[in-house]
Amino acid sequence: MALLHWLVQAGYRNLVVCHLNHQLRGRSSTADARLVEKVGARYGLIVEIGVIDVKGLAAKRKLSIETAARAARYAFFAQTAKPRRCRTIFLAHHADDLVETFLINLFRGAGSTGLSSMREKSLHRLTNVELQVIRPLLGSWQTDIDRYVRQHRVLFRDDASNKQLGPLRNRIRLRVIPYLEKAAGKGLRQNIWRTAMILAEEEQFFRDSLRHMNVDSVELVVKGLRKMGVALQRRTLHTWLRAADIANVGFDIIERVRGLLDSTASAAKTNLPGDRHVRRRAGKLFIE
Amino acid sequence: MALLHWLVQAGYRNLVVCHLNHQLRGRSSTADARLVEKVGARYGLIVEIGVIDVKGLAAKRKLSIETAARAARYAFFAQTAKPRRCRTIFLAHHADDLVETFLINLFRGAGSTGLSSMREKSLHRLTNVELQVIRPLLGSWQTDIDRYVRQHRVLFRDDASNKQLGPLRNRIRLRVIPYLEKAAGKGLRQNIWRTAMILAEEEQFFRDSLRHMNVDSVELVVKGLRKMGVALQRRTLHTWLRAADIANVGFDIIERVRGLLDSTASAAKTNLPGDRHVRRRAGKLFIE
Repeated sequence: MALLHWLVQAGYRNLVVCHLNHQLRGRSSTADARLVEKVGARYGLIVEIGVIDVKGLAAKRKLSIETAARAARYAFFAQTAKPRRCRTIFLAHHADDLVETFLINLFRGAGSTGLSSMREKSLHRLTNVELQVIRPLLGSWQTDIDRYVRQHRVLFRDDASNKQLGPLRNRIRLRVIPYLEKAAGKGLRQNIWRTAMILAEEEQFFRDSLRHMNVDSVELVVKGLRKMGVALQRRTLHTWLRAADIANVGFDIIERVRGLLDSTASAAKTNLPGDRHVRRRAGKLFIE
Repeated sequence: MALLHWLVQAGYRNLVVCHLNHQLRGRSSTADARLVEKVGARYGLIVEIGVIDVKGLAAKRKLSIETAARAARYAFFAQTAKPRRCRTIFLAHHADDLVETFLINLFRGAGSTGLSSMREKSLHRLTNVELQVIRPLLGSWQTDIDRYVRQHRVLFRDDASNKQLGPLRNRIRLRVIPYLEKAAGKGLRQNIWRTAMILAEEEQFFRDSLRHMNVDSVELVVKGLRKMGVALQRRTLHTWLRAADIANVGFDIIERVRGLLDSTASAAKTNLPGDRHVRRRAGKLFIE
């Protein structure tokens, strides 16, 4: 709600307010949606409310609740944006969200791509829509936003799920970060925020470096890979395997495939999940 | 001692064993040095024992004990290596050291350069010596090394300083990491280790990308900087300011200097520590 207030104050018109009811908290979820409708109407904006059974979706697709909810949100945004030819979406993630996400991905070993999942400006490609994603609040802390909300008397509802300790994110927010601030000093959140911002730009640099490589092809030339540094080899293989729909491409898989680049390696084949494998033959790598 | 044993078993000859007595723990420090002499003699190796007053050095140069000790160690290594034309140095850092260092640098906001300060292979340039630094144990955990030490009956001494909770590193090892393992699961250390290994290679990629840029010059061409992505701009400015001996080049300084690249910016000057500043003039940046 703070973001919406800020955008309207900043003079943005023709906004479409999107809210996807995840149905995770029963009546509380419905009340959230009502509030969005009310505030949107007050500003004279179009409001799009979607409803999704996130739990069912997560179970069906074998995803975590958080991953399923994220996929559903982006699908809903795209579906809302396309007929209206919207090209830009504003998301309300703030600095505390960035720090929490950074730590979660670090603790889960998501690698550098995972560490930089939130950027101030980024492109999100979906099947048939390309959205520019903008997070104007990424440099503002929750306390700053709370102050803004009080000063401008912005209507809001406390997100009830924020206080449950179950999900890892809430444990990180309510227990781990306060603990780490005690152990390592008050500057901790600011320090992690800076690191996350730096890594996000470096991630972009890597993506740009890969743009002219043909990672969508069925084969990769070993000689070309050998000339790259380790970092770019890993990136190239990661993108190549993902483009071929290999599930759970982690550090171990990439290191095994990198092992095939060594011409003295005895094995010229390494297994992938789902009964597939990578083979080196005639100076090329193939997914079979 | 485990590293030394391993190197000798692996067939390395002509090793020079270097030990710098930091004099931080009185008689315990002296006993450490004695043990190194004894083990070195047993293997028939040359042993070089240095002595330094780390506390005095840290106070004089206004550095932390850890930073002063590190600088003194590398100076000692270089001084030992040069007359013997040694080109390679083996360091005993293990996987737990890597994870601890990663977290310390993250919590202190050291940026991506700090996050990848330990690599399996790297080059360390000192005033007049270039040493190849190799860390053969970086993939081994403390528990693996303990097991190796028991199996091979390697002589060793427990480092008494490891159990004091004072220094941040010990707090991280004895309290923070066990706490985080409880909060985020047993895979935590392995996950952070992987991330650190990936970032270390990406760091190297960035250094390679910067190699052909003239960051040692007194001026930088604004046009060239504008063409770069944000990540490379930050790296270039960081290296340029450090080459000009600017102290404490942090995120804020770099962002202020980056602000000068914007031709619509009203200011063409920003202050640096130590009464210096960067000025934009005639399409170039100067340190004055």
